Order: sequence, then C-alpha cells, then structure tokens
Amino acid sequence: MKAHTEHLMFQTKDRVEFINITPQVKEAVRRSGVQEGLVLVNAMHITASVYVNDAEPGLIQDFQDWLKSLVDVNKDYRHNLTGEDNAYAHLMRTLMGREAVVAVTGGKLDFGPWEQIYYAEFDGRRKKRVLVKILGE
Amino acid sequence: MKAHTEHLMFQTKDRVEFINITPQVKEAVRRSGVQEGLVLVNAMHITASVYVNDAEPGLIQDFQDWLKSLVDVNKDYRHNLTGEDNAYAHLMRTLMGREAVVAVTGGKLDFGPWEQIYYAEFDGRRKKRVLVKILGE
Amino acid sequence: MKAHTEHLMFQTKDRVEFINITPQVKEAVRRSGVQEGLVLVNAMHITASVYVNDAEPGLIQDFQDWLKSLVDVNKDYRHNLTGEDNAYAHLMRTLMGREAVVAVTGGKLDFGPWEQIYYAEFDGRRKKRVLVKILGE
Repeated sequence: MKAHTEHLMFQTKDRVEFINITPQVKEAVRRSGVQEGLVLVNAMHITASVYVNDAEPGLIQDFQDWLKSLVDVNKDYRHNLTGEDNAYAHLMRTLMGREAVVAVTGGKLDFGPWEQIYYAEFDGRRKKRVLVKILGE
Repeated sequence: MKAHTEHLMFQTKDRVEFINITPQVKEAVRRSGVQEGLVLVNAMHITASVYVNDAEPGLIQDFQDWLKSLVDVNKDYRHNLTGEDNAYAHLMRTLMGREAVVAVTGGKLDFGPWEQIYYAEFDGRRKKRVLVKILGE
Repeated sequence: MKAHTEHLMFQTKDRVEFINITPQVKEAVRRSGVQEGLVLVNAMHITASVYVNDAEPGLIQDFQDWLKSLVDVNKDYRHNLTGEDNAYAHLMRTLMGREAVVAVTGGKLDFGPWEQIYYAEFDGRRKKRVLVKILGE
C-alpha cells in the first residue's frame, strides 16, 4: 500500500474566490505513483470548500449569486459576537462541501468529461491550506 | 490490497429522476471480493448526485419540492448564456452531493437500518455514468 | 493493510443536538494503529449528520437557525403521511452532510487548526449510531 500526502497553499486576493485546482491534484497523483486508489482533497480551513463541478465562468458566478440567496451575508450572527465577521463563510462552505473523494484508475483521476476540482474560498486574503491524500497501490 | 472499479450507466426517461442503486453497489462489493474496505460511489456528471437516504416515495417527492424551493429553475442564469439550460441542475446537484463513501465490513456495506444509496438525476434523458470504486482487502 | 471499525452510540436529550465527536474519532485512530490512511466517519441514520466545522457555541446556534430558514419544520410533507413527523430532519441532514472523510498522517488526524468533527442529531431522544472506519497501514 502507498500513501502520499501534499498540502497545497492558497492566498486569494479577494475574500470570495474560486480556483480550479485539478492540475495540482493530477500532479500529486502522478508523484504518488498510485495506479489504483482513492484521493481525498479537502479544505483544511472551515470557511472554504473543495467541490467538483464545471470550469465555466458563468456557472461560477451563478454559484456565488445562489449562495448569497441562501446565506444572509449581513445578518447579526452569534458567531460574529466573538469578534469574527465570517459566520456567512462557515455557512457557505457547508453548502459547497468540505471535501471531494476521487477514484484513481490506471494512474489517473477517474473523472467524467466535465468534472473539475475547485477550491472555493469564502474568507480569503490570508494563507489557507488544502490537503491532498492519496491511498492505494 | 484489492481495488475494484465499475462504471454504471443510466438513462432516465424524465429530466429529474431518483433511482435506488443500492442493489448495484452491493453486487459490485460482492464481485470485488473485498471484506474490509471503503466504497466510493459518485456521479461522473456534474448535473447529477449520489446520496444516502430513505427509500420512501413520499420523501423523494419532498426532496424534489424542497430543491425547487431553494433553486429557482426559471432564473436567467449566466451559465445558460452558453447555450445550456441546466444551471439549476448544477445547483441542485450541489445540495444533494456528488458522492457517498461507504464502509465495507465483513464483505458487506456497513449500513444503518434505513440507509440506501440513490442516484439523483437533474438533467437526464441522456446517458450518464456512476463510478463505483472499492478499495480494501 | 489495516482496517479498523468502531460503532459509536448516541442518545441525545433534545431532538436537535450537536455533539463534538473529535475525541472519540482520535481515540479510534489511536486504537487502529494506522499511521497513514483515511478515516470515514458517517451517521448510520438518515436524520443525522457528521460534518467538520468549528467548536464555537455561537456558530452552532447559527447553524441551527440557518437550517430553519432553509427547511420549513412545520410543512405538510408527504413523508409525514407515513406516520413520521421527521421529514424536516431528512432535509436538514442533507444540508449538513452524511459523512466526513479525514486523512491520517503520522498516526494522527491531518487537520487544520480549527477542524472539529461534529455529530448533528435532528431527530434524537433515541439510540443512534455513528460509524468510524479506518483504512491504511
């Protein structure tokens, strides 16, 4: 059995920003040498997401608009009484998800035609990490 | 370590349709010969979901009604400017999730009494695939 | 390859209650002896969630308020025609998620600074189980 671990670092310019991280995950799979296995990709911070969807800029804007329709950014959240102002980011991250688990088959991500792995930042402008863990052989 | 991969194919008659795929996943686990491990089951298309919940027809209708309360099917989404008309399906799939990871214990799905694996199609009437990847020994 | 399985049991006093289960998962990882691998933690009941987020009481109340804004607790759901009164719990569990998959690196949960594993009960006051499955070596 092989296990391979990488921690990717991101620091976005905007507070909310979506980044296609498929190339970095593919490269981690290549480096792992795993031919058959599973890859876990997860945000290590609780105001950010990893999700799988389309690399289409219009859809990414639709996601952001839709999140604002389900999460009131300006509400007086209890969490913000702690001095934080990012309760909305915890909620948006919950909708988009913490992690993706992806199969590795024949040494490659076993993906459908449009699947892309995204990092979604909801409280950026500081260093945040994403974990890539590959298990297999 | 054993790895076993199957790609299931679905073509629904309706655009939105939920299918219980537990029997197919159980059969894949049996074929894999894995006694202790993990199964990943994921939609390979980004307008469909795999989720775990109840096989109760009323609840499935409740899910579909609820998704319509959180996703405006008729909105002028930016994604639809590309010629698509399925932005709503990308959003609904995000709420229901892309994947389920299930334990295999003693050669069987390690499930609670009501857990069932569903494929939720939001933009059907064409061929779509679901990946079943089993890792263990 | 090692596989280790534990079933945790919970019976909450309130119908809706969130419990930090990170200590139990850490202890299961220690008992497994796995140094490099993956942990699956999932609710075995379909009206409860396992999710990763902050151990901050204000945020936990924010989560519960927010879920009520997206799921009408008092609606006449079709599922409730079966004699149940917990359709809302199936929907809330869907928003918060069924499972978390976490990496084990160097014998420990490979977590960011604020990541904590929670069990979210939406229809408690009876015995419910959570599965912890560890795969690795």
